[in-house]
Amino acid sequence: METTGRRGEFELIARYLAPLAAGAPGALGLLDDAALVTPAAGEDLVVTTDAMVEGVHFPAGEAADSVGRRLLAAGLSDLAAMGARAFAYTIALAIPSAWDEAMRERWIAGFAAGLDRAQQAYAVQLIGGDTVATPGPLWLSLTALGGIARGAALRRSTASPGDTVWVSGSIGDAALGLRAVRGELVMATAPDRRALVERFRHPQPRLELGRRLVGVAAAAADISDGLVADLGHICIASAVTATIETARIPLSPAAAAQIARDPGLWAAVVSGGDDYELVFTAPPGAAEAVRNAAALARTAVSEIGRISGPAGGEGGRRVRVMGPDGRELAVARQGYRHF
Amino acid sequence: METTGRRGEFELIARYLAPLAAGAPGALGLLDDAALVTPAAGEDLVVTTDAMVEGVHFPAGEAADSVGRRLLAAGLSDLAAMGARAFAYTIALAIPSAWDEAMRERWIAGFAAGLDRAQQAYAVQLIGGDTVATPGPLWLSLTALGGIARGAALRRSTASPGDTVWVSGSIGDAALGLRAVRGELVMATAPDRRALVERFRHPQPRLELGRRLVGVAAAAADISDGLVADLGHICIASAVTATIETARIPLSPAAAAQIARDPGLWAAVVSGGDDYELVFTAPPGAAEAVRNAAALARTAVSEIGRISGPAGGEGGRRVRVMGPDGRELAVARQGYRHF
Repeated sequence: METTGRRGEFELIARYLAPLAAGAPGALGLLDDAALVTPAAGEDLVVTTDAMVEGVHFPAGEAADSVGRRLLAAGLSDLAAMGARAFAYTIALAIPSAWDEAMRERWIAGFAAGLDRAQQAYAVQLIGGDTVATPGPLWLSLTALGGIARGAALRRSTASPGDTVWVSGSIGDAALGLRAVRGELVMATAPDRRALVERFRHPQPRLELGRRLVGVAAAAADISDGLVADLGHICIASAVTATIETARIPLSPAAAAQIARDPGLWAAVVSGGDDYELVFTAPPGAAEAVRNAAALARTAVSEIGRISGPAGGEGGRRVRVMGPDGRELAVARQGYRHF
Repeated sequence: METTGRRGEFELIARYLAPLAAGAPGALGLLDDAALVTPAAGEDLVVTTDAMVEGVHFPAGEAADSVGRRLLAAGLSDLAAMGARAFAYTIALAIPSAWDEAMRERWIAGFAAGLDRAQQAYAVQLIGGDTVATPGPLWLSLTALGGIARGAALRRSTASPGDTVWVSGSIGDAALGLRAVRGELVMATAPDRRALVERFRHPQPRLELGRRLVGVAAAAADISDGLVADLGHICIASAVTATIETARIPLSPAAAAQIARDPGLWAAVVSGGDDYELVFTAPPGAAEAVRNAAALARTAVSEIGRISGPAGGEGGRRVRVMGPDGRELAVARQGYRHF
């Protein structure tokens, strides 16, 4: 673990971040050049790196504790999509040099508290990182490490025509919550607002569900860019087409209430990102196995559509969204793009 | 691998970065949520994360190709310090949103060319990452992955009184080269300038030497923060004190010529960073084994001092630097701090 620049930063990080590594012997107390991880026998290592910029991926002024929880949850969500167990992570952090010492301390303390909460929830440990000063906005990157039985990882490229399409939890909450945080959407009730904003701020990576879907699902991705975009990644990687029905997309009560008032919000539900749910396909006849896996993971799942062959797309669309009246919705791909 | 924002960025990255992952099957073509790595049997995984900000860690306007080479070399240098073999890395990249498309393409093409060159030299592969847009300066982070026989990693915390202190290569070149780049130092000759600037821009991680020192050296670190600072990290982690002599510190001909003109530059040599050489200790009687390891790695090594007990420090200094006249130099710790 390294830190650049002022003495104060070194001490803040030793005070607030080093304790997050205390349970990982291979972190070497964040005192060495690199960390050591002993892989479990027969496991592949699963590695993912994500980056977030203040004002781009989360609103400026977002509480440090939420930023920490959300950064770690987003990284773990990628591991969930592969069916991996998560065990460790490293962070890179650029702190605005314009912040004074009190602000730095407050922020790092809050950020560490958020990481700690997510660590406890998902049984992972900080094992290293780097902290620097920047003349720009707050910048964060996280590399998450997990393990999975060799060859068993869920992939995006393994969907087949005839598969059913499923999602976990409820869809669209985070996109509506972000609009509420930005003041772009006025909610019907304060509890609805709280519920949706909470879903944006504190996503729950579906690690347990992902593990239970190994050997059951055919292909999987997490929903970070939006349902249509992430299902589209599966379709591109698998050279197939998907058709989903809005009527079958699971909504939370709060999202359903918003959409009842403004059906135009369907576009945000299917194309907005940040839910960190799983979207996956399963072979024909696997519905009961999927429901059993979900029950064991205590996570709701919903069947929302079907995979067809590469010729199924119309106008080049990989994912067709059928609206409540049975007609196809025109969905603009918004937000993020993966590859 | 993910990318945020404009369509152009997605295509640039697919074009320039995806080929860097072509040799790593576990990168899954950068098309999945995470990458898979199969650890070698009996090996620990070695993980390190570094971050760099334009204008902080390298001068604004530095060639993209050099930035890529240097970022990867810096990450691999941490693996070298542990004695690991390197095999893969992920990157997180924040590209200024103010750059127009032509500038983005030029920069990413150059950056990828620099990574590619370092990949070829050190036999590592890109396996994943994330690219985002930022309103701030260019920001980069790299997580390097390596392997080492279980329990064999070189550590900072294992130096003992009586050990000799060694460094690889020549010391201070990068610090003088950076000063030249910044226009703070006028070199005696153009070839000297070129040689020192080259050492700043294109450091060579001592991976082969690190591997050969496993079982030979007692403790090791890489020199990224400066000789005194990094040897100081060994001393802190090992609860010992080091005494080194400037007369024994290896200088390149170009650095020696500069110092002959201005002996005050010694301070930059011992406290400036970025050389990415190794500093290590060896037990008494191990000098021949060290020299054999260095010969096999075709890397010069020099014995520059000795480790003494925890009571050896004077005025709380962990590292004493004895000048050419036999008197102790006052060395301010400059630049970066690790923990």
